[in-house]
Amino acid sequence: MKLWEKGIPTDKQIEHFTVGNDRELDLVLAKYDALGSIAHAKMLGSIGLLSNEETHSLVEALEQIIKDVEAGQFEIEDSFEDVHSKIEYLLTEKLGDAGKKIHTARSRNDQVLVDVNLYLKDVVTDFKTQVKALFDLLMDLAKQHQNVLLPGYTHLQIAMPSSFGMWFSAYAETLIDDVSMLNAALAIVDQNPLGSAAGYGSSFPINRSFTTTELGFKTLKFNSVAAQMSRGKSEKSVAFAMSSVAATLAKFSMDVCLYMSQNFDFIGLPAHLTTGSSIMPHKKNPDVFELIRGKCNKIQALPYEITLITNNLPSGYHRDLQLLKEGLFPAIQNLKACLDIALFSIKDIQVKEHILNDKKYDYLFTVDTLNEMVVAGMPFRDAYKAVAEQLENGSYQSPQATQHTHEGSINNLCLDEIKHKMNNTF
Amino acid sequence: MKLWEKGIPTDKQIEHFTVGNDRELDLVLAKYDALGSIAHAKMLGSIGLLSNEETHSLVEALEQIIKDVEAGQFEIEDSFEDVHSKIEYLLTEKLGDAGKKIHTARSRNDQVLVDVNLYLKDVVTDFKTQVKALFDLLMDLAKQHQNVLLPGYTHLQIAMPSSFGMWFSAYAETLIDDVSMLNAALAIVDQNPLGSAAGYGSSFPINRSFTTTELGFKTLKFNSVAAQMSRGKSEKSVAFAMSSVAATLAKFSMDVCLYMSQNFDFIGLPAHLTTGSSIMPHKKNPDVFELIRGKCNKIQALPYEITLITNNLPSGYHRDLQLLKEGLFPAIQNLKACLDIALFSIKDIQVKEHILNDKKYDYLFTVDTLNEMVVAGMPFRDAYKAVAEQLENGSYQSPQATQHTHEGSINNLCLDEIKHKMNNTF
Amino acid sequence: MKLWEKGIPTDKQIEHFTVGNDRELDLVLAKYDALGSIAHAKMLGSIGLLSNEETHSLVEALEQIIKDVEAGQFEIEDSFEDVHSKIEYLLTEKLGDAGKKIHTARSRNDQVLVDVNLYLKDVVTDFKTQVKALFDLLMDLAKQHQNVLLPGYTHLQIAMPSSFGMWFSAYAETLIDDVSMLNAALAIVDQNPLGSAAGYGSSFPINRSFTTTELGFKTLKFNSVAAQMSRGKSEKSVAFAMSSVAATLAKFSMDVCLYMSQNFDFIGLPAHLTTGSSIMPHKKNPDVFELIRGKCNKIQALPYEITLITNNLPSGYHRDLQLLKEGLFPAIQNLKACLDIALFSIKDIQVKEHILNDKKYDYLFTVDTLNEMVVAGMPFRDAYKAVAEQLENGSYQSPQATQHTHEGSINNLCLDEIKHKMNNTF
Amino acid sequence: MKLWEKGIPTDKQIEHFTVGNDRELDLVLAKYDALGSIAHAKMLGSIGLLSNEETHSLVEALEQIIKDVEAGQFEIEDSFEDVHSKIEYLLTEKLGDAGKKIHTARSRNDQVLVDVNLYLKDVVTDFKTQVKALFDLLMDLAKQHQNVLLPGYTHLQIAMPSSFGMWFSAYAETLIDDVSMLNAALAIVDQNPLGSAAGYGSSFPINRSFTTTELGFKTLKFNSVAAQMSRGKSEKSVAFAMSSVAATLAKFSMDVCLYMSQNFDFIGLPAHLTTGSSIMPHKKNPDVFELIRGKCNKIQALPYEITLITNNLPSGYHRDLQLLKEGLFPAIQNLKACLDIALFSIKDIQVKEHILNDKKYDYLFTVDTLNEMVVAGMPFRDAYKAVAEQLENGSYQSPQATQHTHEGSINNLCLDEIKHKMNNTF
Repeated sequence: MKLWEKGIPTDKQIEHFTVGNDRELDLVLAKYDALGSIAHAKMLGSIGLLSNEETHSLVEALEQIIKDVEAGQFEIEDSFEDVHSKIEYLLTEKLGDAGKKIHTARSRNDQVLVDVNLYLKDVVTDFKTQVKALFDLLMDLAKQHQNVLLPGYTHLQIAMPSSFGMWFSAYAETLIDDVSMLNAALAIVDQNPLGSAAGYGSSFPINRSFTTTELGFKTLKFNSVAAQMSRGKSEKSVAFAMSSVAATLAKFSMDVCLYMSQNFDFIGLPAHLTTGSSIMPHKKNPDVFELIRGKCNKIQALPYEITLITNNLPSGYHRDLQLLKEGLFPAIQNLKACLDIALFSIKDIQVKEHILNDKKYDYLFTVDTLNEMVVAGMPFRDAYKAVAEQLENGSYQSPQATQHTHEGSINNLCLDEIKHKMNNTF
Repeated sequence: MKLWEKGIPTDKQIEHFTVGNDRELDLVLAKYDALGSIAHAKMLGSIGLLSNEETHSLVEALEQIIKDVEAGQFEIEDSFEDVHSKIEYLLTEKLGDAGKKIHTARSRNDQVLVDVNLYLKDVVTDFKTQVKALFDLLMDLAKQHQNVLLPGYTHLQIAMPSSFGMWFSAYAETLIDDVSMLNAALAIVDQNPLGSAAGYGSSFPINRSFTTTELGFKTLKFNSVAAQMSRGKSEKSVAFAMSSVAATLAKFSMDVCLYMSQNFDFIGLPAHLTTGSSIMPHKKNPDVFELIRGKCNKIQALPYEITLITNNLPSGYHRDLQLLKEGLFPAIQNLKACLDIALFSIKDIQVKEHILNDKKYDYLFTVDTLNEMVVAGMPFRDAYKAVAEQLENGSYQSPQATQHTHEGSINNLCLDEIKHKMNNTF
Repeated sequence: MKLWEKGIPTDKQIEHFTVGNDRELDLVLAKYDALGSIAHAKMLGSIGLLSNEETHSLVEALEQIIKDVEAGQFEIEDSFEDVHSKIEYLLTEKLGDAGKKIHTARSRNDQVLVDVNLYLKDVVTDFKTQVKALFDLLMDLAKQHQNVLLPGYTHLQIAMPSSFGMWFSAYAETLIDDVSMLNAALAIVDQNPLGSAAGYGSSFPINRSFTTTELGFKTLKFNSVAAQMSRGKSEKSVAFAMSSVAATLAKFSMDVCLYMSQNFDFIGLPAHLTTGSSIMPHKKNPDVFELIRGKCNKIQALPYEITLITNNLPSGYHRDLQLLKEGLFPAIQNLKACLDIALFSIKDIQVKEHILNDKKYDYLFTVDTLNEMVVAGMPFRDAYKAVAEQLENGSYQSPQATQHTHEGSINNLCLDEIKHKMNNTF
Repeated sequence: MKLWEKGIPTDKQIEHFTVGNDRELDLVLAKYDALGSIAHAKMLGSIGLLSNEETHSLVEALEQIIKDVEAGQFEIEDSFEDVHSKIEYLLTEKLGDAGKKIHTARSRNDQVLVDVNLYLKDVVTDFKTQVKALFDLLMDLAKQHQNVLLPGYTHLQIAMPSSFGMWFSAYAETLIDDVSMLNAALAIVDQNPLGSAAGYGSSFPINRSFTTTELGFKTLKFNSVAAQMSRGKSEKSVAFAMSSVAATLAKFSMDVCLYMSQNFDFIGLPAHLTTGSSIMPHKKNPDVFELIRGKCNKIQALPYEITLITNNLPSGYHRDLQLLKEGLFPAIQNLKACLDIALFSIKDIQVKEHILNDKKYDYLFTVDTLNEMVVAGMPFRDAYKAVAEQLENGSYQSPQATQHTHEGSINNLCLDEIKHKMNNTF
């Protein structure tokens, strides 16, 4: 069923090409489409374009559709273009004229806008929850392993002492910045576009504040053209925030893969979290972290895909925008899966102790040696040269354990302050 | 069945995450995997690692698998990690020890490399065929409409006279450059990686020239590390060529959408190639070209996705590479579909005649006027000023029809020369 | 002067390659480097690593350097690697041992981190101011031209009535979302990394809260590894926000270029804002908006460039990060210039009146006609068919002026509500 | 001097914004602009639009300009928009009417097209030469170190034996694929656009074959619209090829940085190729390879930037295209510099011997052990299980040196075959 069919049927090949995999993607939106329609029906009732009875029966039918969706019993058959057509069909079939009235004062353009914004609000909120859980896990691991030292590298060269406490909590604190991006994305999608119709509003005396309250949006996207123009921009804002989270996860995974290498051997994974090789019987590979890395790197291409689809399009709807779903929706599922599996796997990372006993890590302490000279009164640059000379002539002796006391150093991780910052940001 | 299972089962959640949608994507490769295995079996036979009988029975079983694939009767059940495991399982189940020997002297790494290269050879060859068909269509349309004039624009401002002959054949000639890129991609994938095993070769005395000939590759990727390193690079090279084709198609589609606008009204589409609006009864929208444009813009994100997944990974296999398939394979299907639907739709574009009769196009001929003065002896810069003055004081008169004679101008399209160039490049 | 030179000079060719154009880019940071050093010196004084006198003389010398920078009298000669070396040299030359002590308890890594964060705080704050000014201008123009109607398009096909009030204020409201992204970027850069040294802190008993307050940062980036890891992430966050602004500007510019085309002729530009052609005497081209569009599209590649440089690098500093400046700094200048010239040019856009008098725009009102039937009691889908029939048989009559009353429609732009939203977000 | 000025001067701020840094970038094109003008003048002479004397004097004056350019004595002052205006000015100043005639039958559009194509032909040819030199160096190093073993990794886990011969020649063989891409780019830019004027040809009876031969182009871009449309596409094709080379260099550099780490310690660099730290006296950092990596990663953003600027622009010139130069030209310089410094630095890489003596590399040979069982008659899968069991119960013994004999394995590098392939491709 096409809502717009007027006699001349569209060629089958064109229809197949233009519908694409919309039906499958639209299943994600079905619940939100019904929720949007409930608010819309109530509003139409409130301004007299639907009778009380019509409103009531539409709301009831739509609530049943939501139940069907949640029970996995909602389908979009090949005879329908999209979720909107399917739901309108169901309503018309069940309720007759009341169903035919549901599309009053709206267009599929603002329907999909409201569906996507409602969906993305849930998505971003869920990401925040997952990120917070990962933050908590990393903070716990930081506390647990705060005294286990680790070589710190610059240029991949052995540099200065670090610790597992430092490493785990560094990623935790970095996640706070990702939450800032998620918050921005949330503010951008938490605006009601419903009522903008095809992007220019309509001559119906609708009440957009009514649906805004009904749907729990923080504010309206007032201007109808702005509402239409948010298509692509909302998706991209969410994609920016997702990229931000993904970059943190990917970098952590790179560290894990490197630290798992026998040449570093800083951490291990229990056998049940590793995979093997089809030809090398000795292999225990950290595929799970390689795939988090790879999937998260792929997610970072999403904003560019969205930009390529949307840039240089003049204002007003274009069918190209339909394609945004097919990049975004799987990326959302992938990031959720990456966060889930990260939570599942990171907790079992086995931290190796006594790593610094290896002689090659002695140089880690040259700066501490130098600093002692400075504290004793030698200007920094002169102390630098003195130690360089010791290194050159082989007289350098690595000090025993040193103490770093400042905020954010290995012996003063400021875990409470970091938790506090997360709470303020969240 | 995991080829590498050694007692401790991998956690189910990890398994689910790491396998992803490989099974579905691998169906595309099934035929090529069997072809690669046939060549491998014959080679193993030729060096005595398989008996004649084993070789014969393996080849026969693999040929049957190809028939099953072609008949749509090949499946990869959830109990298998990938196509390689499934086929090895089928062979072992059917042939016992001969099946267990098929993985001798290879790894899944070089198996998937050879599968992908064989597949991409077919893909690129098919793209060339489709591009050539589109070229032919555009050239036909150019010839058919060579005398219908069209305004040419610069800065979206009315500039100089053009024609439908010019417009159609411009895109045709541009496709020749895309063929150059496809040729480069073809050269890059037309190399045999089989025998590189896990990326470092093996201690078996295999004969890689044998499989190269058997599989019809132009040459070997000799160095085993280079063969492994081609993963990602082959895909990216093909993605570059696909981007090149996609950019041409997207630009043409942008023109179509603009020229279909009532504000240009240069072309029309028959009703059965358009779609309607759910609320505006008068709409006949060129969705098919908007979607070609959007899909082709999306395809142009593919090389960047591949780059993001692969860059900064040191040499040697990483599991991240598995993710290349899930971006590339659908993009290939999308570009094929775009080329198909373009072939289907472009032929029905309705060219409007007498466009230039509209007074606003009079300025198209100022340069021709100016040129006449130049031919009559006035220096170019002085003639430019003279016409500018006529325009300023309103005395400018647009000339009657003018004649452009040089190669590649509206009255001398050089269609034969362009066809010749395509044939030389193809 | 190299801070780290220890006897064996680095090869000249290597030096040239590694320093690149750092000196030029670092000029942007000179002021911030001096500010960071002032805070650092005061802090060293507060913990007794510098005497009061040393602190005082360092602060005085650094304040003089800031004055020199502001007067355009600060240079980084070829004999210095970067701004940090140059300033340390100036201090040492002027103050002797006090100068040699300034690098105590810090590294160039945290120096550049603090410089960049201070700079980006200013940059983002300035962008917010420019965006607000553009918002105000667009809102003024919306009010001024609120009653001038414009055709609204979907699929580039004539769709429904819009207005200049709608068009200008749509972009204004969209800018509010860009401010949300700028706010997120600001939160991310408003954290003090100073004291993280080479990314692992140090054994000096420094007081990082002291420098945080002194430099006016909202909080610390506590964890030293997290501070180091923010390199690239800060830049990318700002780049995301810049992309967001740039996308809005680019889209507006696309509209302007299209609406300037004689085929739309909705707006004009005064001659002094246009440019001409070297061969077509009649041309008045909107180059300024084409270049805003192009530059803003280019800016949208910035986050991708940053991602390519940083992704898959394990934690810890890598020299690659030095390259972030050479993409980011010019992009900042370009976006500033685009916002400036937009403010300068948009105010002079000439709005054409009576556009809708052209017969081709009659179809704009089919939805309004249909809506009247609905208000009179006909179900929406039936009214849709009735109007479609009128259009088919030629009996459709475009209504006289219609009235749209809902929030965000052409006759109810909600300009005050939009201003209120901007103020709440800013 | 503006070629198109007609009385109303363009606003200074607009002029500044629109000209940008064109003057600086155009210096690169000056020589090519003069070469294009020489060919154009000769052609105008050949069709009688210039007298013999005019032609002769123009050619002479243009040859002098080329000499000035080569001597570094050519400037584009602020009073000129671009190189084209400056050269036309010089000719007019020197030759009067003959100078005013040089712009006959062309536009700045085809002038810059021909300049860029001539420049890019040289650029791509130079890249091929540099790539070939790097290939030769890597092949020499491969031969020199062919017997030095190296651990091979998969998943960053110790996998199977490799060698320096394998490693160096792997990158050499990979460069052959980059040459294929360079060849495609070369074919695309080796076409003459001159005569397409502003993108629609002209009414002058010019002879485009004449200039094609004169300028040494392989063929014409016949269709004038196609010629104009090649702007952006030529640049992107070259950018694709540059990305391809850059990806190879970046990956090699990642390997170098990793292998330089004390945790791998496979290679060293002489001190004069390393840099130090401002605080850690023991550091010798491989900055040069980090910067090759970073710069080459950045270059890979170039095609995306070009795509963002050009996509969704309808056919016909747009001023946005001017911006292509400012991304492409520095990227070309950067890739040249990276190839130069790679040639300079790689030759001094110090290869460590006896790496495999470390006990942790014993597992490298499990596959060789397994293969021996297979050769002795055990099916592959059974041998796999047998070795896995030995590893499990600790009875596994690493074999003495093994022999790999197949094409592309550690003991049969096929260096001659690889050289032959390069020669065939070059």
